[in-house]
Amino acid sequence: MASLPVTIADVEAAASTIAGGVVRTPSAVSQTLSEVLGATVVVKFESLQFTAAFKERGALNRMAALTPEERAGGVVAVSAGNHAQAVAHHARRLGVQATIVMPVTTPFVKVARTRHLGAVVEQFGQTVGEAMARGRELEGEGLTMIHPYDDPLVIAGQGTIALELLADHPELDALIVPVGGGGLAAGMAVAAAALRPDMEMYGVQVVRYDSMARALAGDAEPVAGGPTMADGIAVSCAGGLTVEILRALACDVLTVDEDAIEDAVNLVLEIEKVVVEGAGAAGIAALLAYPGRFAGRTVGVVLSGGNIDPRVLAASITRGLVRSGRLSTLRASIDDQPGVLAKLLTVIGDAGGNLLELQHQRLAAGVPIRSVDVDLCVETMDVAHRDRVLHALASAGYAVGLLPTS
Amino acid sequence: MASLPVTIADVEAAASTIAGGVVRTPSAVSQTLSEVLGATVVVKFESLQFTAAFKERGALNRMAALTPEERAGGVVAVSAGNHAQAVAHHARRLGVQATIVMPVTTPFVKVARTRHLGAVVEQFGQTVGEAMARGRELEGEGLTMIHPYDDPLVIAGQGTIALELLADHPELDALIVPVGGGGLAAGMAVAAAALRPDMEMYGVQVVRYDSMARALAGDAEPVAGGPTMADGIAVSCAGGLTVEILRALACDVLTVDEDAIEDAVNLVLEIEKVVVEGAGAAGIAALLAYPGRFAGRTVGVVLSGGNIDPRVLAASITRGLVRSGRLSTLRASIDDQPGVLAKLLTVIGDAGGNLLELQHQRLAAGVPIRSVDVDLCVETMDVAHRDRVLHALASAGYAVGLLPTS
Repeated sequence: MASLPVTIADVEAAASTIAGGVVRTPSAVSQTLSEVLGATVVVKFESLQFTAAFKERGALNRMAALTPEERAGGVVAVSAGNHAQAVAHHARRLGVQATIVMPVTTPFVKVARTRHLGAVVEQFGQTVGEAMARGRELEGEGLTMIHPYDDPLVIAGQGTIALELLADHPELDALIVPVGGGGLAAGMAVAAAALRPDMEMYGVQVVRYDSMARALAGDAEPVAGGPTMADGIAVSCAGGLTVEILRALACDVLTVDEDAIEDAVNLVLEIEKVVVEGAGAAGIAALLAYPGRFAGRTVGVVLSGGNIDPRVLAASITRGLVRSGRLSTLRASIDDQPGVLAKLLTVIGDAGGNLLELQHQRLAAGVPIRSVDVDLCVETMDVAHRDRVLHALASAGYAVGLLPTS
Repeated sequence: MASLPVTIADVEAAASTIAGGVVRTPSAVSQTLSEVLGATVVVKFESLQFTAAFKERGALNRMAALTPEERAGGVVAVSAGNHAQAVAHHARRLGVQATIVMPVTTPFVKVARTRHLGAVVEQFGQTVGEAMARGRELEGEGLTMIHPYDDPLVIAGQGTIALELLADHPELDALIVPVGGGGLAAGMAVAAAALRPDMEMYGVQVVRYDSMARALAGDAEPVAGGPTMADGIAVSCAGGLTVEILRALACDVLTVDEDAIEDAVNLVLEIEKVVVEGAGAAGIAALLAYPGRFAGRTVGVVLSGGNIDPRVLAASITRGLVRSGRLSTLRASIDDQPGVLAKLLTVIGDAGGNLLELQHQRLAAGVPIRSVDVDLCVETMDVAHRDRVLHALASAGYAVGLLPTS
C-alpha cells in the first residue's frame, strides 16, 4: 500500500489546494431512487460543478502545482469533453494559457464552450487517440501536458470527492463510480481504503468500453467499441497508474449495457430533476443492472457529470417513455370506409388510452386495396395498461401491431 | 401594514414549524445565467423538495395546525398538480388521511404519483374549478380543506423561502417569483417587506393567465387563457388574501409569453443541469423578457418546481434547438438524376453543416415530375451558421427552404 503512486496524504493535500476553486458539491439520500432501486442510495452531485463535471478537481490540483516557468509556457490537454472544459476554466482562473486539442469530430457545442472559456482550440485527428499526437507535439514545444487521468496529482484531485462524501455520509457500505481512464475511481479508492478499509469500491464501465475491467483481468489490449451514450467514459486504454491503484485496492469493475445507461439517465432526470450525462449515470445504471449485489445496502453513487447533448437527452426521454409503456405507436389496418376510424378511436378511449398523434398511411406498400394503415401514438400508464389497450383492440376485431419506436 | 392577514411573525413561526419536514433548499449565484441574462442571478432550487415543488411548505404549515378532531376527520385538497402531491406527502407523514380531488383531465402520471403518496384520489369535473365543487362537498362532510394559496398559514409557509434566500444572499436588490394564485409571492413579499423594505418584489404570470396582474389593476374577472406550458401558474382567479397582500406591499406583476417560458426552461436545463417546469422557470423568463429592468442588478429567482411532463420537456428541448438555429429542417427540390443528392450534401458539408437525417419525398404533391423533394435535418452552430449554409446552397443553385419545425 505504501508504495502506491497516490496516498491519502496526497488526496488530503489536494482537498486543501482546490478548496474555494471548485464547488463543494452536495450529496443526499434519494428517498425515491432508494425505493426504486432497493438500496439506500446516496447521490453526490458532481454535475453541479461550474463546468458540470468532476474533472475540475484533478485539473485544478495538477495546474496548481505548475512552476512559474511552466505557467509562463502554458498548458495543453487532449480531450473532446469534460476534461477540456475543466482545464480551460481553471487555466483562465490561474492566468495560464491553455491549448486544447480536440478531434475534428467533436460536436460544435463542445468546441464553442471550450473556446468561450478562454482556451485556444486546435482540431486534429478523428479520435482522441489521433489528437494526442498533436498534443505531444505541443508538449515538445514547451507546453505542459495536463493528462485527464494518468497523473498522480489528477488522481489525488478526483479523490477529494470521497473525502466529502464520507464526511457527509459515514454510513456508506459501498461506493459506485464511473470508470473511463480510471482517475476518479483510483483517487476515490485511495481515500476510501484509508478512511474506510471495510467499504467496498466498485467501478462501472459500459460493455463497449470495458478497458479497465480487461486490464484488471490482465488484458491490456485497447478496446474500440463504437458509439455509446456514455461518451465520457468511452476510453480505449485504461491508465497505467490507475490500473496499478485499482488492482492493489481490489476495486471491482462492473459493466453495464447501453439500455441501463439510458434508463439511468431518465431515472435521475425524472426523480432527481437533475440532468446527468450517460457516463454520469453509470453508477445508477449499475444499481439497475446488479440489483442483487446492492439490495438493502447503503451505497454512494457519484453523478459525475451533466454535459449531455440536448438532442441525445430529448431522444432518451422519448425512448424511455416508449420502453416503460407510457408512449406507444400502434399500427392498425382498417377498412377504408366511413366511420371505421371513429370506432377504432372509441375502443382506445374506452380502454383509457390517450391519443396523441394519428397518421393515415394510405399509400403504404403491403396494404391491401380498400384497406388503410393508421399509425396511432397513444399514451398509457405503463406496459400493463398499454397491453390492455392492445387487447381491447384485438377483442374488437382490429388487426393491430406495436411499432418498435415512436 | 399591521392589518395584513399574514405578518413576518407568522412567516417566522412557519419556519420553525416546517423545519426538518421540508428540504432547506440550496441557492447559488449562477455565473453563466448571470452572463447570459445581464444581471447577477441568484437561483433558489425549490425543485429539490421531495415532491419537487415549494408547495410542501405551505401545505405542511397548514396541516401542522390541524386540531386532533380535524386530523381524525382527514383533509381534502383540490389540485391537478404540485399542491396535490404536497398535501398527500405531508398528510401521510402526519398520519392524516388525505383525499385529493383532481379533474378527470389530469395526466395519468400525476394521478398515479398522488395515489402512490398515500392519498385517495377522486377524479371529478373537467377543470380545477369544477373539481372544487366536489371538494366543497367533501368539506361539508367533515374533511378540512387545504387551500393551495388563499389561506394565511399556507401563505406564511411559502414565505419561509424568502427567509432562507435573504439569509443566504443578503445582497439581493430584487426578488422575482412565479404567481398563480399568489401564495408564494404574498408570503415572500411579507417577509421581504419586513426584512428588506428597500428591496423590490416582482411576481411573474404568463400572458394567458394574468389574473393577479388584472386583479391588482382592479379587474377581478376570471381569465381562461387556454393551454400553457406554465400549467402550475395557470390560475383563473387570484386569491382574496393574496391580492390584498400584494397590493398593500406594491408587488409589481410582470407577464411573459409562452416562448419566454420555453426558452427559460431550456436555459435552466442546459446551464444549471436542473429540470424546472414551465411555471418554475417564470422568474428566468421575466429576466429574458425584461432585460432592461434588471440589468446589472442582483436578483433572486425562485425555481419553484420541477414537475414537467417528460414529453413536454423533450419537445421543448428540440424546439429550443430549432429556435436557436442549432437544428434545422431544410427542404430542397432537386432533379431526379444520379449524383444530384451527393452534390447537395457536399455543399452542406463544405459549409460546416452536420447532416442528421434525410428523407426523400418522392410522392409529395406539388413537386414537378422528374423532381424530388428532399428534407434534410441539419445541425449548425447558431442562426448565423444556419443562414450561411442556406446561402451556400442558394449560391450553388439549389431551391431550398427552411421548414417551420423539425
